[in-house]
Amino acid sequence: MSRKRTLLGGLVLTALFAILAVLVLPAAVAQRADDPLPSWNEGATKQQILEFVRSVTEPGAATFVPPDQRIATFDNDGTLWVEKPTYTQVYFMLERIKALAPEHPEWRTTQPFQAVLDNNLAQLEQFDEKELLQLVFASSAGMSQEQYESEMRQFFATWRHPRFDRGYTELYYQPMVELLTYLRQNGFKTFIVSGGGMDFVREVAPRIYGIPPDQVVGSTIEYECQVADTCTTLIRKPTVKLVDDSAGKPVGIQTHIGQRPLFAAGNTNGDIQMLQYTWARPRAAFALLVRHDDAAREYAYEQHPASEKALTLAQQQGWLVVSMQRDWRRTFPFEP
Amino acid sequence: MSRKRTLLGGLVLTALFAILAVLVLPAAVAQRADDPLPSWNEGATKQQILEFVRSVTEPGAATFVPPDQRIATFDNDGTLWVEKPTYTQVYFMLERIKALAPEHPEWRTTQPFQAVLDNNLAQLEQFDEKELLQLVFASSAGMSQEQYESEMRQFFATWRHPRFDRGYTELYYQPMVELLTYLRQNGFKTFIVSGGGMDFVREVAPRIYGIPPDQVVGSTIEYECQVADTCTTLIRKPTVKLVDDSAGKPVGIQTHIGQRPLFAAGNTNGDIQMLQYTWARPRAAFALLVRHDDAAREYAYEQHPASEKALTLAQQQGWLVVSMQRDWRRTFPFEP
Repeated sequence: MSRKRTLLGGLVLTALFAILAVLVLPAAVAQRADDPLPSWNEGATKQQILEFVRSVTEPGAATFVPPDQRIATFDNDGTLWVEKPTYTQVYFMLERIKALAPEHPEWRTTQPFQAVLDNNLAQLEQFDEKELLQLVFASSAGMSQEQYESEMRQFFATWRHPRFDRGYTELYYQPMVELLTYLRQNGFKTFIVSGGGMDFVREVAPRIYGIPPDQVVGSTIEYECQVADTCTTLIRKPTVKLVDDSAGKPVGIQTHIGQRPLFAAGNTNGDIQMLQYTWARPRAAFALLVRHDDAAREYAYEQHPASEKALTLAQQQGWLVVSMQRDWRRTFPFEP
Repeated sequence: MSRKRTLLGGLVLTALFAILAVLVLPAAVAQRADDPLPSWNEGATKQQILEFVRSVTEPGAATFVPPDQRIATFDNDGTLWVEKPTYTQVYFMLERIKALAPEHPEWRTTQPFQAVLDNNLAQLEQFDEKELLQLVFASSAGMSQEQYESEMRQFFATWRHPRFDRGYTELYYQPMVELLTYLRQNGFKTFIVSGGGMDFVREVAPRIYGIPPDQVVGSTIEYECQVADTCTTLIRKPTVKLVDDSAGKPVGIQTHIGQRPLFAAGNTNGDIQMLQYTWARPRAAFALLVRHDDAAREYAYEQHPASEKALTLAQQQGWLVVSMQRDWRRTFPFEP
């Protein structure tokens, strides 16, 4: 092939691409720009979300809800990011216990610490709340708030998920983050209401969800001024202030938000009360339950006792059940 | 004077006013539009506020603070609205106790209730914390959250201040509300951190301060689901969850906001720890103390033991002391 022909061919190809770009690309881009939920498959689930948001935002409609009442609350573990094989915070706790072990030689022969140091996860699952709280306090209390935040930052900087080999910045559910953004674009104020540690979620929420720390509600220990009369530093106490799970979630919502949500999303039995409390709102309300039924792309644990009751209630009450397999075009942001 | 001359005179006057309007009014309007704090007198106090905000918002400056760290916390009683002759919430509490008295004949002969029913304010001031909490619980616990909110709305709809004969919508300090607005215009997120009842302040904050309920931190009792398994209603319990005053204020800030403020404003000893905690922020910080020294327009109680320590500390630390008499052009929005 002569150089001239190649050049000519190149020009023809360039022209062809230019024509294609004019004819095809803008339509594709426009379609994507018009669709606020591109990672959701078309169908009844997606339509139900879009229709609800339209109904409460349409000025003059009987179903209109003023922006200052558009409160949306989202569970975190299993609703916004992956919670299997175990909670991300458990990995942090285990890492901290191991790092602190040299200062506590007695842990080698004392439970529940021994199980952590032996990597005995089966035994860890058998511990009751009192023993687990010992691990929580040992790994996250008795230090200043600044020191704890520094330790969390170190953990998040290096931790990777054992199956997906990705860091926390890629382990959220892309469709749910699109839903958060879509709600905010429609005047909703979005909150996280997590059973997990409040400070732990606050550390990552601004970066991956666009949610500031003060809009994260979660379980928390107590704080106190290190010196009561000259309070320049807060110390984390080994006492529980709020377990923001199950019947604790409406309590966390009233304490931190001060009004009943208009929209709530969860995925397990620990979210039932938040969804009931939202559903009991006079006039409009929306309750959504994520069903983990996609072992190929994530995990399938919809038949686990921790989710079964919530799924049964959702069907009885008319809450929207989102099937990760059927309703999501892609699950994680790193999927092609 | 003939009708014609009057008409001519009228035309001349109209023309004169038109010229004056063109020459003078736009300048006056422009001056006001340029000034974000029109109710503050010119001087060092106002300049110090303007200069701080400029320093943390100027892109590229060494003193620049990103918007997500621009947290401003304001005390309420005596900092944003009037707290004399007593807290507004005390009036609400007394009104509720009196309304509930027919259901509690024993209150006629039992303290601290008897003092309320006898309007014995002198005796009320002698009660200790335990007795005062009895009044708080009797007037604001043991009912659903919705019922409590309905009672607060009824109170605020009719209550008027004994000296100014105005309702709560006119009893805020106009210069401080301008300051809140000015900070928000500069990317600050504004919070109230009050020693008063959190729900009580949440009821009025959106309307008079433009601050939503979730950005109000305050003292609070505990809530719980009326039915734990089917949580459609929250009940207010007669137990204290947080006393958001003195060393409780940094605790309330961490619990609800999750980061150290960049700007804090208070007026009495109960605000000292919030100001210390803010002042200890690395790099930039601003602490402001309102001095009540204007008996003519409001009240003068700067020499009261409840403010003295804070004023002394402010001078030692270099916090900005705002003199209501010297620094404010007007105090309340109803002033001419």
